[in-house]
Amino acid sequence: MSTLSLLERYGKGAVAGSRVSALVCRACGHEMPVVATSSCDRCFGPLEVEYDYTEVSRQISRASIAAGPPTIWRYQALLPLDLEDDARVSLGEGLTPLIHARNLGAELGLRNLHLKNDTLNPTGSFKDRVVSVAVSWARRHGIATVACASTGNLANSVAAYAAHAGCRAVILVPADLEPAKILATSIYRPTLIAVDGTYDDVNRLCVELADRVDWGFCNINLRAFYGEGSKTLTFETAEQLGWRLPDEIVVPVASGCQFVKHRKAAGELIDLELVDRGSRLPRFTGAQAAGCSPVATAFASGAETITPVRPDTIARSIAIGNPSDGADTVRIARETGGVVEAVSEEEIIEGIELLAASEGIFAETAGGVTVAVLRKLARSGRWSGDETVVAYITGHGLKTADAVSTRLPVPEPVAPSLRAFSERFLN
Amino acid sequence: MSTLSLLERYGKGAVAGSRVSALVCRACGHEMPVVATSSCDRCFGPLEVEYDYTEVSRQISRASIAAGPPTIWRYQALLPLDLEDDARVSLGEGLTPLIHARNLGAELGLRNLHLKNDTLNPTGSFKDRVVSVAVSWARRHGIATVACASTGNLANSVAAYAAHAGCRAVILVPADLEPAKILATSIYRPTLIAVDGTYDDVNRLCVELADRVDWGFCNINLRAFYGEGSKTLTFETAEQLGWRLPDEIVVPVASGCQFVKHRKAAGELIDLELVDRGSRLPRFTGAQAAGCSPVATAFASGAETITPVRPDTIARSIAIGNPSDGADTVRIARETGGVVEAVSEEEIIEGIELLAASEGIFAETAGGVTVAVLRKLARSGRWSGDETVVAYITGHGLKTADAVSTRLPVPEPVAPSLRAFSERFLN
Repeated sequence: MSTLSLLERYGKGAVAGSRVSALVCRACGHEMPVVATSSCDRCFGPLEVEYDYTEVSRQISRASIAAGPPTIWRYQALLPLDLEDDARVSLGEGLTPLIHARNLGAELGLRNLHLKNDTLNPTGSFKDRVVSVAVSWARRHGIATVACASTGNLANSVAAYAAHAGCRAVILVPADLEPAKILATSIYRPTLIAVDGTYDDVNRLCVELADRVDWGFCNINLRAFYGEGSKTLTFETAEQLGWRLPDEIVVPVASGCQFVKHRKAAGELIDLELVDRGSRLPRFTGAQAAGCSPVATAFASGAETITPVRPDTIARSIAIGNPSDGADTVRIARETGGVVEAVSEEEIIEGIELLAASEGIFAETAGGVTVAVLRKLARSGRWSGDETVVAYITGHGLKTADAVSTRLPVPEPVAPSLRAFSERFLN
Repeated sequence: MSTLSLLERYGKGAVAGSRVSALVCRACGHEMPVVATSSCDRCFGPLEVEYDYTEVSRQISRASIAAGPPTIWRYQALLPLDLEDDARVSLGEGLTPLIHARNLGAELGLRNLHLKNDTLNPTGSFKDRVVSVAVSWARRHGIATVACASTGNLANSVAAYAAHAGCRAVILVPADLEPAKILATSIYRPTLIAVDGTYDDVNRLCVELADRVDWGFCNINLRAFYGEGSKTLTFETAEQLGWRLPDEIVVPVASGCQFVKHRKAAGELIDLELVDRGSRLPRFTGAQAAGCSPVATAFASGAETITPVRPDTIARSIAIGNPSDGADTVRIARETGGVVEAVSEEEIIEGIELLAASEGIFAETAGGVTVAVLRKLARSGRWSGDETVVAYITGHGLKTADAVSTRLPVPEPVAPSLRAFSERFLN
């Protein structure tokens, strides 16, 4: 089945709402109809949802948001779907805790450090935000099979949401994925396909497949809708800070899609005057593992394009060697005064351990990357101490338990008696 | 250090608020002061927090709750502490999703089946509710070391909350605990002590220890406060149902503490007229693993007391052979028209798989017990189909991954080419 027939099949009856007028190519500005499609049909650039913000501003306010559900759907007026509660495919994603990290902040010299704990989404990562939007879109438009290429977290999420929606799921992952991520996908009984290759190989295969089958690939032909779900992380951060934007946001970078959407979200909050007047764009800072740091490398060298790499890092969930939105990430970091920084494997592990011991939050390797970049930047004197800095912790530690399990002490058992205990521990 | 000196040390300056007047023995009615203490000093019975409900009713309303934080602390007027936001030890516990389980409901013949997904608490289990209250109480009353006896989930939670609070934690667990639960405790760097014995052995040791050291044991000398946190699960359920109580609540039973508190919570909601007038008490139904089912056994035999057993089940988190609140659990089930049922190991695994495949929720073995009991009762014709039934899913699947990992298919890898893929999957 060609892209055209997919357009024909799903183009009619789009429920994007009166606020959504078109998909627009971020590279060349070409306008396309609001249908499932992978990229600009002129230049293959990435597609953005174009909103009628006059209409959006009529539909959204602080009060309407506060009256909404405790999920990403409280921001529906800034998402590309108009659905009643029951028509959403929702497992309660979003409105995750924003934690004032006093202990970690003291360690790093930051009095106003906050952690957005997105490990507490339904399948343990921020991907549930984007997948709830994508699978809702797919189901509403009659797409019977949802699919994805994944480094793991997306696989978990698509499999779970498809189960909840009663859709078929086809999930393609690199064959050497972490055992916990395989398990936390297959438990939902999708069609799980292990591909001999890197994530970039898997992704390339899916791009080709998307032209041949009538499946909705969350991060390919549904990507324009899917990506919009990421914005809710920044919407929530502003709401939870009392409708203020932080001075700086630190985000792990894989494809860069999320990074680009956070910039868009902050702009929307300012333009719609949802945040206090006079609010300025945060600095957007990216975090990568040195073992897969094409975006950090481009940032450091002053390049405007990304040179792909072959990933070699324990931070598998962000190991994308050829990031689709890498160049836009570099541009946004530069424009807003942010940076893109990379850290070593040892620093990643230390980041996981530091976060857990100081704040009681157990993150996966990508979270270790984020905390390690925070620490590296703090040590380099980036902050004076009063800035409001928010770090996005995007995946749960039990997903990559193997990364830390061998480093933790295994206690020697004690006999179950007061005497044995006292002799060993109370003297 | 004796219990008395602990009283002396922590009895003064209790910030239980004007609404909390005493601790009262559930067995003999003896009144005690509001301090850290393990049990009634006359009969060793369990202690309940006694509220002045006239005062509570002045402090709480649907509006005050809606205006509160998206955590258990929105119900502070029904908790034994009055703390400002900053003084609470909170990681965002509570207000977890209540999911209308249409697929699982269809399978079981229940149109109004809801799942309270308490796997989405900060450390992946409902224990974060009770620990947030206990550690907040401990910190406010100057207790420098928090401790617990645990089957795993409590260990995860106490370690995390102590890290966040900046307290010392001493955690005692059976030495043969699941690896994921050891890891998800030690990552927070508590003093982790493995005891050669069952949970009941560990608990007995902690009861003795609580008389010797000045530590706050969450589930022993802080138990009266700690247990109150459980009520928030039922408060939220009612709020999320639009201030209605369900017809029946299905709860996994370990010590029975949680079960007793849900009954108390429902009574409070009715007495304070927070739920719609005419609301009736739900039936309270308990779920156990046949490999550790002293409460189900007592229920079935008509006994009023519990005969302890030696646990042998994969549902380790609820494997308490000598449950402190077992007799009260049996009584409440009987009084409300509920039952206490047990299921086999095979049924537990099937319960985990059924829940994941039908609703996209991955639960630990205790969740498998709950779903399996739901299925068993549905098959026995317990429900006509229109009842509102809520099941509490209390712990995350990645905590007991080993229970299902060997049963899931491991996919045979495919080469990363459209041709290889098509030959194998598209014909």
